[in-house]
Amino acid sequence: MIERVAIIGTGLIGASVGLALKAVNVPVVGWDSNPAELAMALEIGAIDEALAKDQALDPDIADVFVLATPVLPILDWMQVLAAGLHEGQLVTDVGSTKRDIASMAVKLFNQPGRARFLPGHPMAGKESGGAALADAALFNGATWLFTPVDGVQTGLEAEWRGLVAGFGAQLRDLEPARHDEVCAWVSHLPQMLSTALAALLQDTFADDPDGLAAVQAIGGRALRETTRLGASPYSMWRDIALTNTEPIAQTLHALEQRLAHMRENLRTPELRDEFATANRFRSKPS
Amino acid sequence: MIERVAIIGTGLIGASVGLALKAVNVPVVGWDSNPAELAMALEIGAIDEALAKDQALDPDIADVFVLATPVLPILDWMQVLAAGLHEGQLVTDVGSTKRDIASMAVKLFNQPGRARFLPGHPMAGKESGGAALADAALFNGATWLFTPVDGVQTGLEAEWRGLVAGFGAQLRDLEPARHDEVCAWVSHLPQMLSTALAALLQDTFADDPDGLAAVQAIGGRALRETTRLGASPYSMWRDIALTNTEPIAQTLHALEQRLAHMRENLRTPELRDEFATANRFRSKPS
Repeated sequence: MIERVAIIGTGLIGASVGLALKAVNVPVVGWDSNPAELAMALEIGAIDEALAKDQALDPDIADVFVLATPVLPILDWMQVLAAGLHEGQLVTDVGSTKRDIASMAVKLFNQPGRARFLPGHPMAGKESGGAALADAALFNGATWLFTPVDGVQTGLEAEWRGLVAGFGAQLRDLEPARHDEVCAWVSHLPQMLSTALAALLQDTFADDPDGLAAVQAIGGRALRETTRLGASPYSMWRDIALTNTEPIAQTLHALEQRLAHMRENLRTPELRDEFATANRFRSKPS
Repeated sequence: MIERVAIIGTGLIGASVGLALKAVNVPVVGWDSNPAELAMALEIGAIDEALAKDQALDPDIADVFVLATPVLPILDWMQVLAAGLHEGQLVTDVGSTKRDIASMAVKLFNQPGRARFLPGHPMAGKESGGAALADAALFNGATWLFTPVDGVQTGLEAEWRGLVAGFGAQLRDLEPARHDEVCAWVSHLPQMLSTALAALLQDTFADDPDGLAAVQAIGGRALRETTRLGASPYSMWRDIALTNTEPIAQTLHALEQRLAHMRENLRTPELRDEFATANRFRSKPS
């Protein structure tokens, strides 16, 4: 039985996990590198106790550790925790890329005498981050991916999966490399695209106040939706770009070629085929 | 005083204009090349009378004609109507591109003895078209652009603008070429982008049912919003691509280069600058 969960990183996702755990009466402690985020998590009741860093490093502070920082700090925490934790403890995470994390899990965890590591990734979020926006219902109806690194499933892992299912999430297992490849298509490419489009519009109209006013007056839902992710913070996406560079580069390159093909065929029947193919993608049940 | 309006093309936009006019008791007649659309417009009360084609061509059927078809048929209707109409009548349109329409207006209308032509473009729509989705409130809060071709404003034009303002729309005048350039950025580029992305995903995962299932399970709001316009029909966009080819090609080319720049800088501080520039675009009041 899980007696206490430690959440490392009490931003939007970490604090939402805390609220969802508290809703089913699981004791939760937390730490964040940003004292304001940590205080907010405590204030909204996402954690029972705000830890000092040395407390968060205490291997006996909890039986389950949830790493809910960007990917690079997750990798750092894995190294620090692996040394102190022991068999019968579980570390899991909510990081956006899984290949590097899974590789490190194989190296440092899941061995005799060591704690278990179950890589995870809830497909949920909001436009802005921070504990102030945390929501116990954030994972309700969302997909929560796991990329287990071996065929073993301990009781603690099964219990953690049960809690996640209780959050209302749909669980789905994927191979780590496959996860990163699919996420490059469905998440990282849309992000890079939206950032590129917003940045391009900003640079194109920045010195033309009239034009920017027209863009803002005229731009409707199409513009809003395709540039919405342009508001996303670099701090999180830097780590995604660093840990999934090749798959993201491949999807970007494929899209560049597709746009060039469309540009060269604005006046040919090939444009009709592009629309028909896109129509098929959108007609899928989703 | 406007006594009767004829709407040529009673799809989503045409029928919505009809409903908005009927709401303020303006008599409306209509024609559509698709008998089902025409019957639906009559059934929902968007028009008082469904015209046969020869009736729609009768210059005395109305004092204001609203051309609400795709752009190429608008150009056809302008030629047919110009010959029969006379001074004191008004033709306006809701076409998505304005340069070709404005050029033809200068050539065929707005001369002594001829009817007036006021090019217009409401920035409103829905994911699917058709009279069945028509809505008198569709233009409420939307921007309705006009691209007048001379400095003249007749009483009938002022009255039509007044009706449009009564629909709840914000009126804004632009030069025709400027309209097409700005719309390439805020509407046509997002459309082509969304079509290209949806078509690319369809082709990438079509032969991989497992992958397509994963894409659909994992893809969240980011994927949904960036591919939503992939459902748009070719029939309307063909005419936009044909009548605004060069501005659309320029925006596509600029985006291709921006994506390549991002791809080459996934691991450099340049990525931070791209995110910062995009953040600035999204932080504008809109």
